Amino acid sequence: MGFYTVSNVEDMRICVVMVGLPARGKSFISQKIVRYLSWLSIKAKCFNVGTYRRKVGPAHPDADFFDPSNKEGSQVRQNAVTEAVKDMMAWFSEENGVVAILDATNSTKERRRWVLKLCRENAIEPMFLESWCDDKELILRNISDVKTSSPDYEGIDPEVATKDFLRRISNYEKVYEPLDSDCDKDLTFVKLINVAQEVIVNGIQSYLESRVVFYVMNLHIRPRCIWLSRHGESVYNVEKKIGGDSSLSPRGLQYAEKLPEIVRKSAGDVNLTVWTSTLCRTQQTAQHLPYKQLQWKALDELDAGVCDGMTYEEIEEKYPEDFKARDDDKYEYRYPGGESYRDVVIRLEPIIMELERQENILIVTHQAVLRCIYAYFMNVPQEESPWMSIPLHTLIRLEPRAYGTEVTRIKADIPAVSTYKEKGTSKLGESSSDATAKFRNLLNGAPPSA
Amino acid sequence: MGFYTVSNVEDMRICVVMVGLPARGKSFISQKIVRYLSWLSIKAKCFNVGTYRRKVGPAHPDADFFDPSNKEGSQVRQNAVTEAVKDMMAWFSEENGVVAILDATNSTKERRRWVLKLCRENAIEPMFLESWCDDKELILRNISDVKTSSPDYEGIDPEVATKDFLRRISNYEKVYEPLDSDCDKDLTFVKLINVAQEVIVNGIQSYLESRVVFYVMNLHIRPRCIWLSRHGESVYNVEKKIGGDSSLSPRGLQYAEKLPEIVRKSAGDVNLTVWTSTLCRTQQTAQHLPYKQLQWKALDELDAGVCDGMTYEEIEEKYPEDFKARDDDKYEYRYPGGESYRDVVIRLEPIIMELERQENILIVTHQAVLRCIYAYFMNVPQEESPWMSIPLHTLIRLEPRAYGTEVTRIKADIPAVSTYKEKGTSKLGESSSDATAKFRNLLNGAPPSA
Repeated sequence: MGFYTVSNVEDMRICVVMVGLPARGKSFISQKIVRYLSWLSIKAKCFNVGTYRRKVGPAHPDADFFDPSNKEGSQVRQNAVTEAVKDMMAWFSEENGVVAILDATNSTKERRRWVLKLCRENAIEPMFLESWCDDKELILRNISDVKTSSPDYEGIDPEVATKDFLRRISNYEKVYEPLDSDCDKDLTFVKLINVAQEVIVNGIQSYLESRVVFYVMNLHIRPRCIWLSRHGESVYNVEKKIGGDSSLSPRGLQYAEKLPEIVRKSAGDVNLTVWTSTLCRTQQTAQHLPYKQLQWKALDELDAGVCDGMTYEEIEEKYPEDFKARDDDKYEYRYPGGESYRDVVIRLEPIIMELERQENILIVTHQAVLRCIYAYFMNVPQEESPWMSIPLHTLIRLEPRAYGTEVTRIKADIPAVSTYKEKGTSKLGESSSDATAKFRNLLNGAPPSA
Repeated sequence: MGFYTVSNVEDMRICVVMVGLPARGKSFISQKIVRYLSWLSIKAKCFNVGTYRRKVGPAHPDADFFDPSNKEGSQVRQNAVTEAVKDMMAWFSEENGVVAILDATNSTKERRRWVLKLCRENAIEPMFLESWCDDKELILRNISDVKTSSPDYEGIDPEVATKDFLRRISNYEKVYEPLDSDCDKDLTFVKLINVAQEVIVNGIQSYLESRVVFYVMNLHIRPRCIWLSRHGESVYNVEKKIGGDSSLSPRGLQYAEKLPEIVRKSAGDVNLTVWTSTLCRTQQTAQHLPYKQLQWKALDELDAGVCDGMTYEEIEEKYPEDFKARDDDKYEYRYPGGESYRDVVIRLEPIIMELERQENILIVTHQAVLRCIYAYFMNVPQEESPWMSIPLHTLIRLEPRAYGTEVTRIKADIPAVSTYKEKGTSKLGESSSDATAKFRNLLNGAPPSA
């Protein structure tokens, strides 16, 4: 319930114009915003000018290419941004885009005024988002990310790449004009200073803009992990029933007993906080964990409404049309008197926001809820996420990195029934699409802009 | 789902230290924060130094009293803030307070460092919140509010009061030092410039602080109204059943037909947006309204879980213990498989945030949901709000003002059953506590600080 109804944003179009020197985390922030909004069903896309530049210019340009006095380089870069903006405008008008991110340095006032004018001519609300940073350590970490992951330095010796990249940054510094509360009073902008140590927000117009601002304000880049687990096998699981508030089966209780050891092996001495739902089976699963525990109503299982407590076979028999409708569009299908996956995503939004703020959290919750949380971190599209396999008695460890999330699955080696229902049948069995999940082991983002 | 589980904040104590010249809306903001947090069950209290100053000093001090060179005046004011802080510390330790607001000008660095030191010595996290304003019109509007509502000017000719108040402001201006991103880098602070045209946020530590920041960022002071209505009488209402997703009764349909006229009479030509729940009865009620409409799942009725579709008599018979438990603590009681009032408040939090941002909204929703929304605007305590009478076929108009919310109830003159259940019985009847609601016609806040 944390967010917009879909129709609420339909007549709004926002262009988030990134601003900042190279190695200030612009691409990282851009991709996180796109992922967050997409997860909330708000159509968002990142237009990375670096990618366009590599299409129209040299594949591995050195720092001289970025010297403001280099006429040829400047022309190529101007062509690149022009192409990116052209594609962005087409995306807004032909594909009904809602939030575009123009990921580039946009380092001069002149360039920003040019983007501003184009946006205004096309009835698009521009919001400038500057990442300003003078924290040496932070910059060095970003440089190290770029030199290892940017296509600009593919196949180039890391030491050479670092030196060249530092020269590139100084070339940008020659002309860089930060956003300024006085001169840019008329713009809608957000200035993040050293990630979000200080944030300056100017002239925010819409709720959607304010949500993006709140989201980026909550980001941090301290290393951390998130652990996810379903509750142990429950009595209802064994009876093939969905929903309810049943206790754990004997095997589920075994999992609860083993969980502290599995967690300790994965997390070491890190001090975790455990989040459970308000339902009995998650709390029983977490009962032996030696950490602080919090219950969230928002982590309760997808509400199956009138079908709560039934088996899939019963649902197929009693509500054949609903049964089919759910298989046809599982993300949107709402049980009579209950919820859809979309509803669950909306109520999980504050959980995601809090997860972004926190460091080391272990979440013990339910199949549908975990699918939604997993989809956020792994960028799984809506049509796929409700079909992901998240087996019982398995601990999942997510490690968010600069350009993706690493995932590790640790099986507890305690047998459990499968609760995975294939499309088009009421039978439960191990999922063949487990393979899909396995291949999503690293989130692929756009290459970092440089 | 929008917010904290209660246990999450128990070991956190925050002092919001207001900063700003007189007539900058500090008391308005303070009271809104207290109301918002209290509604979310976070224990919050405002300590208005002006109130303390009137206790220890003259009842109607003139501007000379506030001259920084007036030794006696300065001493009285120092005593007042000392008393306020003493009470605040006692409230934290004896009453387990979570968020205190120290509502005063706190206009010098010296004063702020003094508060900072006291907070740190008592393990309280200080967050400075400055309202900085150079918008003449805004200041004049605030001055006009203060001269008519401040006890300092009680019984004094408005023209004399205005002149004196302007002199008082200039006395403060002599020593006022605004918060500064450079000198105050080590502080947690928020600086609101001309309400929220520009916002500077520095060093936010906790989620609770970030929520307060997000809340004040969304405030506006443009005049507006909010209209509330329950759906028309439904088939279930007539059958005395709770929950479900039934259609309107013939009288309910009559109300739907009459609603556009009633709204037009109250709102005039103002262009409204209508928010309904996803349930049939609210959409049928709104069907003839000539405004843009949005459906929110978050506006659905309190989920009665296993009791959905039953009459109160059936509940009393089938679940006598639950029936009694609910009467004993209606705010906390959660239907098995359903929700409590507390759960509803948490899922309504984003609705309230969006309402704060918007101008003219008409909400058509359900009894329990309206009680929660009404409680937010009218500052109704938790033990009372689930018992408020919100009759069918009645339009409620809320007009938020500087120091309270004005409420008007417009009856449609179409008969409907009563859905009001008195404590301790399963019978439905008109509520005697309707009187309570009627007396709450103006929210009483603390007097404005000056």
